[in-house]
Amino acid sequence: MTTAFHSRTRSASALAAAAPSLAELLGDRFTTAPSALEHHGTDESWQQPLRPDGVCFPATTAEVVAVVGICREACLPIIPFGAGSSLEGHVLAPEGGLSLDLSRMDRILAVRPEDLDATVEAGVTRKQLDRHLESHGLFFPVDPGADATLGGMAATRASGTAAVRYGTMRESVLSLEVVLASGEVIRTGGRARKSSAGYDLTRLFVGSEGTLGIITRLTLRLAGLPEAMSAGVVSFPTLGAAVDTAIEVIQSGVPVARIELLDDVMMGAVNRWSESDHPVQPTLFFEFHGSPTGVAEQAEESGQLAREAGGSGFRWAREQKDRERLWWARHNAYYAALALRPGARAWSTDVCVPISRLAECIAETREDLDQSFLQAPLVGHVGDGNFHLLMLVDNEEPKELAEAKRLHERLVHRALELEGTCTGEHGVGMGKRSFLPLEHGPALGVMASIKRALDPEGLLNPGKIFPP
Amino acid sequence: MTTAFHSRTRSASALAAAAPSLAELLGDRFTTAPSALEHHGTDESWQQPLRPDGVCFPATTAEVVAVVGICREACLPIIPFGAGSSLEGHVLAPEGGLSLDLSRMDRILAVRPEDLDATVEAGVTRKQLDRHLESHGLFFPVDPGADATLGGMAATRASGTAAVRYGTMRESVLSLEVVLASGEVIRTGGRARKSSAGYDLTRLFVGSEGTLGIITRLTLRLAGLPEAMSAGVVSFPTLGAAVDTAIEVIQSGVPVARIELLDDVMMGAVNRWSESDHPVQPTLFFEFHGSPTGVAEQAEESGQLAREAGGSGFRWAREQKDRERLWWARHNAYYAALALRPGARAWSTDVCVPISRLAECIAETREDLDQSFLQAPLVGHVGDGNFHLLMLVDNEEPKELAEAKRLHERLVHRALELEGTCTGEHGVGMGKRSFLPLEHGPALGVMASIKRALDPEGLLNPGKIFPP
Repeated sequence: MTTAFHSRTRSASALAAAAPSLAELLGDRFTTAPSALEHHGTDESWQQPLRPDGVCFPATTAEVVAVVGICREACLPIIPFGAGSSLEGHVLAPEGGLSLDLSRMDRILAVRPEDLDATVEAGVTRKQLDRHLESHGLFFPVDPGADATLGGMAATRASGTAAVRYGTMRESVLSLEVVLASGEVIRTGGRARKSSAGYDLTRLFVGSEGTLGIITRLTLRLAGLPEAMSAGVVSFPTLGAAVDTAIEVIQSGVPVARIELLDDVMMGAVNRWSESDHPVQPTLFFEFHGSPTGVAEQAEESGQLAREAGGSGFRWAREQKDRERLWWARHNAYYAALALRPGARAWSTDVCVPISRLAECIAETREDLDQSFLQAPLVGHVGDGNFHLLMLVDNEEPKELAEAKRLHERLVHRALELEGTCTGEHGVGMGKRSFLPLEHGPALGVMASIKRALDPEGLLNPGKIFPP
Repeated sequence: MTTAFHSRTRSASALAAAAPSLAELLGDRFTTAPSALEHHGTDESWQQPLRPDGVCFPATTAEVVAVVGICREACLPIIPFGAGSSLEGHVLAPEGGLSLDLSRMDRILAVRPEDLDATVEAGVTRKQLDRHLESHGLFFPVDPGADATLGGMAATRASGTAAVRYGTMRESVLSLEVVLASGEVIRTGGRARKSSAGYDLTRLFVGSEGTLGIITRLTLRLAGLPEAMSAGVVSFPTLGAAVDTAIEVIQSGVPVARIELLDDVMMGAVNRWSESDHPVQPTLFFEFHGSPTGVAEQAEESGQLAREAGGSGFRWAREQKDRERLWWARHNAYYAALALRPGARAWSTDVCVPISRLAECIAETREDLDQSFLQAPLVGHVGDGNFHLLMLVDNEEPKELAEAKRLHERLVHRALELEGTCTGEHGVGMGKRSFLPLEHGPALGVMASIKRALDPEGLLNPGKIFPP
């Protein structure tokens, strides 16, 4: 669709041309120090690091505009960088260029409890925002696990454990301030809850992965801390029984706040890592939000469905400390998985399917994994039909990489055959590009037209989303 | 932004050139009969009718593709038409052209209760879908009042009374089939609840008002019929007390399904029309969905807030017949308003503001109206910060039109100053075009770039959204 026209040789000389202006603008907030290049060319994905030619740390939207102007002049690619917690290589620099690190733009500009919204700079992290909101009795409900920046979360259309109740970044962003490749600064909407005034640019930039513009500010929808919360954990005799229970809970209309699946491999990993003795069985983790009677009703109804499916070892909790203890295994699953094989990298990938196809998709995937020599725990936001594999791979072993690639391709093709998507929440980045023609067909051409219309020179995060 | 390059003379000769091919393709489903032109050049807005040069009734996506090909060849504008219930002139033909009436594409293709979704052709109306869903225990929650087509509702990003709980068309469309100006057919997504796989084309086409493509199929999110429902009506001593109560109900987190305001002028109109004796006071209409204890809790909490604000004349209902009787005044407000002045047209307009600014916005607007010689009842989806005026105007009286225009402009400017939007749910069409530069600033240029990228010849619904 798009071709790499920024070679690394060209980008190095472009950086050299731009460097004096960047240094003049930003002082020591522009750097080519190897450690900074290393850090900004690496994310948490299985991809090999790809360093940028330079890194800058603008502190204001005006500085972002100036940086974009300098880069446009020099024909230097720009790669927006948040917390570096991407799982699909979004922040890597396959064509070289300047990493634009937004972490200095970390001001919470306004919290408006009466409107349940807040305006923040793109470098604010979600945990930083949540700490700030606590005194207002509010929280920001999109929780992807990592303490990502809100700009990065919007750019990748992140979601996570609470999306089944509160929605993803798609539903949680009211409007954005974006710096375009042209240097223009736009605001994609106001603060009204809804609008029919023209094209939905907010939703266009949410999930555009830095390829259409650089998000510098966000106005976000917040949620009120629920009056009551409760949590539950239930073990199941089979993976199918756990998945079927999750599906029934959703279909019966229980407004569950979180419903997470860990398979037996993952539960075993958790036990090993934490010297705990959870049943090594497929396990569902529940969280309920509402009024005291509401959460009791939800827990009762979900518990009933779990019992009917053969669930056992029920544990329930109301108090925060107890809830956290119950959910500890879920919150630490990623680290427990990595510890299964010290030194290995986690090839973390996700797909999402209609919930009626989830049981089939998970069962076939688990079968694939059980027949492979790679270890790969499975964990899922099953209320959304979304699940993840963490394939533990030695990146130096071509045989292992080839096997991970094979399993990955089978997983994605399976999800697409089941009317799902190649990624529910991680984004495309570099890792999922090759699947987009199959998933989108001619709609990918529409995306490419929009890309060309807004970034005709291909300056913004080249090598992402569009297939090579 | 865009200029009208299809003059009516040109469009008439273009139609003449295209007519033989259209007749060959569609037989008597292509017509230039004056009654058809009249009907398709008129909507429910205050705009003067503007006839197309011809009307066609394709029955399949393949026929839509063929029609688009013929029109492109002839340089003939295409104006998609659903039920003609637009309130901002979306279906009018200011530059002439072919009205593409999708009402023959009225098949419900699939209902999947296990996934809470359905796939329909664009000409299916929302009431048709709801009748079909009833036996499944499901409903489609976007309710704009009129029995619009679902394609039209998606195209205008419609919402309505239940949006406060269930969201608008933005949240309710999972994916679309769209015929582009190029004749290509794209599908904007799969059936997964969420996806991070590239640009959000679904949300781009929702609200694009037929200017980027012709929606031919939709996959929609459904909701389960709630276990219990209840309704309530409360009168208030002042408009401010009613609005404040609505705001407090929302801010306190009551998951109200509908919360509607009728001002005293509207309540008087209802009484006159139906010979009833509702208190002629600002009135809130509530509807609650949930479990039996849940709706009781919601009603109790809302009632308490209403009492504290001086609410009186409480009426509550649980059974469907009683609920319908209670809500009768709300459901018939439009007709009651029209009957205030027989022969007048209703200049119906809407704005939407952050809820914290709603009281101020409504108070100042009501003051404006009270000082005007025009009658204008006010009705609002106040849970979203969204409200409507129905200005009763004799279209033949320039003085009245000028006064309506003045009030309208003051309303929109007020909403924009309060960080709101010029339209919460009616769309831009022809009626709100002039406000977009003020609302969007340079972001309007991004919209224009996208329009040029996808419809370089300006064939699709010219004269809409973009200012003249």
